Amino acid sequence: MKSQTRYLTFETRRRRELVRITGEVASLAAESGIQEGMVLVSAMHITAGVFVNDDEPGLHADLEAWVQRLAPGPSADDRTPGPDYAHHRGGEDNGDAHLKNLLIGHQVIVPITRGRLDLGPWQQVFYYEFDGRRPKRVILKAMGE
Amino acid sequence: MKSQTRYLTFETRRRRELVRITGEVASLAAESGIQEGMVLVSAMHITAGVFVNDDEPGLHADLEAWVQRLAPGPSADDRTPGPDYAHHRGGEDNGDAHLKNLLIGHQVIVPITRGRLDLGPWQQVFYYEFDGRRPKRVILKAMGE
Amino acid sequence: MKSQTRYLTFETRRRRELVRITGEVASLAAESGIQEGMVLVSAMHITAGVFVNDDEPGLHADLEAWVQRLAPGPSADDRTPGPDYAHHRGGEDNGDAHLKNLLIGHQVIVPITRGRLDLGPWQQVFYYEFDGRRPKRVILKAMGE
Repeated sequence: MKSQTRYLTFETRRRRELVRITGEVASLAAESGIQEGMVLVSAMHITAGVFVNDDEPGLHADLEAWVQRLAPGPSADDRTPGPDYAHHRGGEDNGDAHLKNLLIGHQVIVPITRGRLDLGPWQQVFYYEFDGRRPKRVILKAMGE
Repeated sequence: MKSQTRYLTFETRRRRELVRITGEVASLAAESGIQEGMVLVSAMHITAGVFVNDDEPGLHADLEAWVQRLAPGPSADDRTPGPDYAHHRGGEDNGDAHLKNLLIGHQVIVPITRGRLDLGPWQQVFYYEFDGRRPKRVILKAMGE
Repeated sequence: MKSQTRYLTFETRRRRELVRITGEVASLAAESGIQEGMVLVSAMHITAGVFVNDDEPGLHADLEAWVQRLAPGPSADDRTPGPDYAHHRGGEDNGDAHLKNLLIGHQVIVPITRGRLDLGPWQQVFYYEFDGRRPKRVILKAMGE
């Protein structure tokens, strides 16, 4: 089995922000020389998500409203405080970000077939920062033959 | 590492529909000859889910009510319109289906042990169509030794 | 490709309970001798979750309140009955546990790099029992080279 690993670092300017990373995943798959296998894309933090969906601004606005409805927190630009969570007793203010991480998920597997990412026509890989403005990492690990 | 890939195509009659696919996953695992490994089962669309749960009609009714409560949309038979999403500005009507995809997840890994799917007694693999009546694909990729 | 498989069994005293299992996952990774690869950690039941997040009691209290808000059920110690689900028609009382399983997810992949679990500083692996007081299993399967 071949494998290749890379780490991406993000430091977003806003509390919450979406970053498309399909290109980085495709580039690692190509460099690995793997013909059949997969790339694991996994956030190394507990306040960030990784998901596959459409790169469409309206959808991204819906997504922001949705994560706020199901796991309420400060506004994306941090001008509005969120509800108080038990997690905040120790001085944290990111209780919502932990729940958003569990709602969206922190990892995906992207299959590689015949040397290329085997995604559907609209599938793009995204990093979803839920508590930004500091360096956060994602691991990409390609495995296969 | 051995690998084997297959694509399933679904074209459901209703907007939302559940399809059990454990048999297809088991069949690919058997054909692959893999003794120890896994099968990745992953929707290639952003408006469909893949999950593991019980094959029980009451549960499936609860699940339908639940995805509608957390990510509201048109009724399963499309007779009732859903709320308006920002994603609909471009003419789409499936904003809810994108959120349901993120709620349920679009992929699972099924382990293979001693040449067989290593699932618990009640675990069945399902495809959950959230925006049907057109051909949609799922990739199955077995990997292992 | 090397692989190694282990099953963990849990029998919690309460209906809902969190168990940290990072140590068990690390121990299997070490014994497998795998330098580059991954461990699949997957519940074999449809009423239990596996996730990665912080080991912080306030967060765990928030998580309990959150799964109860989004998929209501009996209290963790079972003193309060939950709402009635269609799944209960056959005599079951754990409809909420199936939905909580889908909300949290039933599996994660932990990468192995240079022979060690490649987790971020705050990432811990947890088993989340949603319908305890009977033996339930989790499969750990290490795969790699």
